[in-house]
Formats: sequence, C-alpha cells, structure tokens
Amino acid sequence: MGMTMTQKILAAHAGLDHVAAGQLINARLDMVLANDITGPVSINEFDKAGFDSVFDRSRVSLVMDHFTPNKDIKSAEQCKKCRTFARRFDLENFYDVGEMGIEHALLPEKGLVCAGEAIIGADSHTCTYGALGAFSTGVGSTDLAAGMATGEAWFKVPPAIRFNLTGQLSEFVSGKDVILHIIGLIGVDGALYKSMEFTGPGVASLSMEDRLCICNMAIEAGGKNGIFPVDDITKEYMKDRVSRPYTVYEADADAEYEQTYEINLSEIRPTVSFPHLPENTRTIDEVGNIPIDQVVIGSCTNGRLSDMKAAAEILKGKHVAKGLRAIIIPATQQVYKDSIHAGYIDIFLDAGCIVSTPTCGPCLGGHMGILAAGERCVATTNRNFVGRMGDTTSEVYLASPAVAAASAVAGKISGPERSR
Amino acid sequence: MGMTMTQKILAAHAGLDHVAAGQLINARLDMVLANDITGPVSINEFDKAGFDSVFDRSRVSLVMDHFTPNKDIKSAEQCKKCRTFARRFDLENFYDVGEMGIEHALLPEKGLVCAGEAIIGADSHTCTYGALGAFSTGVGSTDLAAGMATGEAWFKVPPAIRFNLTGQLSEFVSGKDVILHIIGLIGVDGALYKSMEFTGPGVASLSMEDRLCICNMAIEAGGKNGIFPVDDITKEYMKDRVSRPYTVYEADADAEYEQTYEINLSEIRPTVSFPHLPENTRTIDEVGNIPIDQVVIGSCTNGRLSDMKAAAEILKGKHVAKGLRAIIIPATQQVYKDSIHAGYIDIFLDAGCIVSTPTCGPCLGGHMGILAAGERCVATTNRNFVGRMGDTTSEVYLASPAVAAASAVAGKISGPERSR
Repeated sequence: MGMTMTQKILAAHAGLDHVAAGQLINARLDMVLANDITGPVSINEFDKAGFDSVFDRSRVSLVMDHFTPNKDIKSAEQCKKCRTFARRFDLENFYDVGEMGIEHALLPEKGLVCAGEAIIGADSHTCTYGALGAFSTGVGSTDLAAGMATGEAWFKVPPAIRFNLTGQLSEFVSGKDVILHIIGLIGVDGALYKSMEFTGPGVASLSMEDRLCICNMAIEAGGKNGIFPVDDITKEYMKDRVSRPYTVYEADADAEYEQTYEINLSEIRPTVSFPHLPENTRTIDEVGNIPIDQVVIGSCTNGRLSDMKAAAEILKGKHVAKGLRAIIIPATQQVYKDSIHAGYIDIFLDAGCIVSTPTCGPCLGGHMGILAAGERCVATTNRNFVGRMGDTTSEVYLASPAVAAASAVAGKISGPERSR
Repeated sequence: MGMTMTQKILAAHAGLDHVAAGQLINARLDMVLANDITGPVSINEFDKAGFDSVFDRSRVSLVMDHFTPNKDIKSAEQCKKCRTFARRFDLENFYDVGEMGIEHALLPEKGLVCAGEAIIGADSHTCTYGALGAFSTGVGSTDLAAGMATGEAWFKVPPAIRFNLTGQLSEFVSGKDVILHIIGLIGVDGALYKSMEFTGPGVASLSMEDRLCICNMAIEAGGKNGIFPVDDITKEYMKDRVSRPYTVYEADADAEYEQTYEINLSEIRPTVSFPHLPENTRTIDEVGNIPIDQVVIGSCTNGRLSDMKAAAEILKGKHVAKGLRAIIIPATQQVYKDSIHAGYIDIFLDAGCIVSTPTCGPCLGGHMGILAAGERCVATTNRNFVGRMGDTTSEVYLASPAVAAASAVAGKISGPERSR
C-alpha cells in the first residue's frame, strides 16, 4: 500500500521506508514552536523534566504574539519567562515586541518552515504550514518541552481524507470560503486525527495565501494536519525566503484515503460560520439580516497582505457604518509595512477603521477588541465558540476579509458583491 | 486688586465683574468631558441624581480612549454604557474606536476647546487645554454628572503662581523638559489648588504642542490649572479648527501672584523624572547608567505630531537596542495618518518599534505594554508612581520623546545629543 504525502514526510523523519496509518513512530523535528501563552507552560515542563539544553538553537521558535504588547502584569510575566529562556539558550528565533508577528504568519514569511519539513507547535493552528507541503501540527506543552530538548516527537501516523479540488474561485471568494465550506460539509470533527490532503487541478488556481488560510483551519475540522502538494506557486513563495535545501514529497498513486470529497471551487460562494461552531455555515445568500457591532480583520487565518488587499478594495472610498467598530490587524510587521506602502492603511483610516500592531488579540478574547454582552462581531478569525471573543452572550461570525469589510460598511452581515 | 487670566475667565463664566482667590462661584461650562473609565461612573451618578437631559448635546464629549480597543469584558461593558448614553442623548461628540484619539489630544485637534472657554473633564489631565488660553480642569465623577446635566460647576477661585519664561529652548529640549524641570523645582504639591500661569517673552518661542505638553502636566505639580496667554501661535493653531467666536482674556497688570518663578528656557537641559514621583528630576547629565527594558512614546502628554517627529529624527536609520521593546502610540487617528505620510511610521518600523492604534494604554497600566516585575521603562507619559505601568517593582522614568527615542537606541537612559 502506498503512502499519503503526510505519511511520506513522517516516514522520512522517522528514518523508515514505510509507515502506515495507526503506526506509532518517533520522528525527527525541523522546527519546534511556542508562543507567550504556551511557551511558559512548556518551559515549566522542560525544567520539571530536568532538561538542560535545546536540541538546536536555530530550530526552537518562541513568538510573543497572543497578549502582546502586554495587556497586563500576568502576560508581562509570561513574556519575561520566555525572554529569559531564549537568552539562556541563545535562541536564534525569539520574536519579541518590535520583531514580531502572529506566529503562523511570521514563520512562513521568514522562511523558518518549508516544504518537506516536520514541525510541531504548542498552538492548534500550527497546521498552517501544511500549505507549504510540510507536516505540521499542534501539540501539548509537555510534548513541546520534549521536542525543544530532543528535537523529536512521537506521532500516531494519521489516516487521510482527500479533497479533490477542481474549477477555480469566483471574484470575492477566497481560501477562507473554501475551508469554511469544507468544515460546513464535514463538521468540526469530520477529519478527527486525520490528514486533510488537498489535491487536484484546482490547487494551481489557489494562491499561497489561500492555501495557508485553508490549512490553518484544518484543526477546526478536527484534522491532525492539512497539506497541499508543492508546485510552482509553493516554490516561488519559498524562493526568496528559504535558502536551505528542501525535499518535495508526493503522495503515492496508490495512497489510501478513507474518503475523497470532490470540491468544485467554482461553486463556492462567500461563506459565513454562524455562532457558535465553525461548522454552522451559511452562504452569503442565506445569512438574513444580522446587524453587527464590530468587525475584526486579521489573525493567523487572515492577516496576510492579500487579506489586507481584499479588505482595502472593499473599503476604498467608503466608510464603516455609524456605531460599528472596525479593527484591522496586519499579522506581521512586514505585512503592516507593506500595507502602508500599498496605501491600504490610508484606506482603512479614511474608512474609520483602526489599525493595530500585530497581535492575536481579539481572536481568542485576549485584548484589542473584546465584546460586551450581546454584541456581535464578524471576524476573519478561526473560532466562534461561546465567549471566544468576550462575554458568553456575544456572538462571532467567521468570514473572509472581503465579507468582513463589506459587513463593516453595511453594519450587518453583507456580501462583497453588493458593496460595489 | 486685578485678576489673573484664570480669574478673568472664571468671572466671565460666573457672570461676575470680579472674583478673588478663595471665592466660591458657580460657572457656566463650555465643554464637559469624560472617558471610558470615568464616563460610566459619571453616568451612574447622573442616573442616581435623576437627571433626564444633558444641557447641550454639542458640549458633552465622551472619548473612549483608556482601555480601547477593549482589553477585556469589563472595559467592553464600560464602553457599551457610554455608547448607550451617547445614543440616548444624541451626543455630537462621542468618540468610539475608529474616530478616536486620546481625549486631551483629540479635543484641541478637533477644535472642541478654545481660548477663553471653561472646561471640566473627569480626568486629571483635562488641564491640558490651558495651552489655548482656556480655563480647564479635572473634576470628580459627581461634579461631571452635574456638569453634563446643568452645564455649570462650582469652583473655588484659585490663587496663582506665575512662571516668567525667558530665553528659548536649545535643540533636543522640549516642553516636556520645561514642565519636568518646573515640577522638579516646586515639587508635586508645589502648586496645590493654584493656577500655574505661564508668561513672559519666552512664551513666543514655545510651539503650541510644547504648551499643550506643559499644561498637561500642571496637575503633576498639584495645579488646579495651567494656562498660557493667547498669542499669534495660539490663533494660528485655532484658525482652521475653531469656527465659533472666542474671547481672549489677559491677566491684569496688577493681578496678584502668590509667587513668581523665573524660568530661563535657554538653561533647561533634557530632564528625566526618576521613580516614583515626577518631582524626582535629574538632568540628562546626571542620570548615570540605567539599563531599560521598554520605551513608550505617546500619551496625552507627548503623542502629538511634533512628538512623533522628534522621535523619528532620533530613530531614523538606527535600531532599538537588542531585547528592548519600543512602543509608539500616536495620540489620534490624525496624528497616526500624518505620521504615515511624513514617513515616521516607516522609520519606527525599520528601527524595530511597534506602532499602536491611539490609546492611553500603558500610561496608566491599562494595556499595550504592561511591565513585569523589576522591569524599567522610559516613557513620555505623565506619571511614574509605584506600579503605574505594571508590577509594583517595575520602574517608570518620565522623559521627552527625544530622550525616550535616544534611550531606546542605547538600551539605557540616554541623551539625544549623543545619538547623532
């Protein structure tokens, strides 16, 4: 029996010729990541286990992104703990205030992750890097501590679901709509502990940023990882970012998939996940009249330059609805800078939005736009669980940057087509 | 006996020909201001007193600036309460996320306060507007509630201290150094319940932004208000901002001052207030070796365009010290936008700073840069009390934007001259 793309990467990292779904393996890691929430917990575990070195100071990343610039004394102490750890082991990739960005936007941008690599992160959305043809998944803090020390981790080799993509996206439809559509289709546990492997002729029509967004939310369908094949678009993205050699793995022709879904990209409509689960999707044509109080455009899911562009194109020459707060958060310092030069920030300010320094902030109810009782927000983030962005009676509607921007202008959930 | 400038404004607003220090008067108000911390308390008092209208919907300002974009559910509820109040009375000057700025930068910028007016605000630094030749002071939330309803407030007419300014500031010395120098001279209760009236030939050499900064910190010497005479610089500043008629009041030649200080601006050096009181001043020549962890440039004291410019001139082509967090917070959306167009934001990002959306944030330990135990910050803010910006063992050093920027580059408290 052949192997899936994920299985091939895992086999290579375990030093094995072949692995099969369900098999327990110990794999070598190319990158180990934590943030200012999970880092301190992992460091505690690291100390408790008596470790006194990291396996490779260039392959442990700590990114201060969740509650930074620090929102309170507790979060300041958490960053301080990470900072001290980074100094202790002279970590090359410690990202503090000023160098920072949201981890899952920053690592691909800086070329710290690439095709064929195996990556763990103490953050659910570590699955993002599958867009580059890497195996990448979220782990708990104990696994992360062991990973920092040994450069290895145990995995149960996942079975896979295949998503065969055909057609191409219509105007105003993006990777976010694709992944929301898929989660609506298979449910939040539809890919539980499985690889979500995206294949087919439709892949070539998806930008790298679409793919990053799609893989980012694999975990929202329960996926162990999401992964795209490596093509010219991937290589072009890595060209100026990655100088080390990388390996391209392809699924075997006879790889086993538990299921195959046919996804015609041409048929996907702008899609919104209603409270309180990402699987509660409706197309923009079915949303009804939902007045909103706030819009958030950003996060590891949708805070990249193409997301800023999509929002700017809708907001240009318009103004957000009276009484609506629109919060735009470029995911990295580079995205922020590029957005200034492209004129997007000017457009946002003229439209009555605020622009925040990079932070995960409101996505997880951290800071920078928390909701009061009964308030509704359209957000380009990845989770809309009860109380995720504030009060337990507040509501989060997940959408693309285009839908979020159009909704900001309309003051209610609204499609981007109408905004022209 | 003649009247001081402050006394003349108060007399006019009380409908009296003459007032004297110590006299209790009831004065008409031109503007009544609260923010997202004091607004909700004032609204509670307003409701408790049974008021059911505001005296003038164009003369009650609510500015959401302290914990916005909201840092937690509690602050979100506070803003919601203000928002509801603003809608109830159709307030013309409710400033929410997207329209906002720090109140004491926003009101002068928008021409909502001007020469000859009487203004109260439920915020200590309401004294800022004295720079425009207005009487302006901070009050408690009960007084503010009565002010919103009646448009009047009781005052005990303050005696005055005169600061006779001569000479002019050297390069790299600004209004911040002047007021820190004065507070160092007279102490944090040196002007307790008194007017600080700035006069003399040196006034003409001070920009409007220098004057706003100086008056902003009058309260840090215990002053009831700080006030500058109205000259061509004041009129030029108000020209495009204020369309209503305003009155220029001048102190009588025989006005009584409890004391007169001679301040030679030419002799003032860059000045730093050491922990934990603004009066603990040292000139930059006396600071010694103080390594720092963070720099904050912003606040109602120093978040205006000239402050951004001063910081940018120092940071241009340089980088902040390794391990130092530099947080720059333009005080209003307009300052932010102007800073983009002037190229300052590019300079800040290239130098490794982060740029925040307008907020009071770290100044009062709110969010956006809170300090962990033992950390040190040079801040352009106005208070360095124990625990003001975070943990009770953290330290805040008050300084000008030029000193703060130079310190960010050096990684320790440092003078701007050396940075060239």
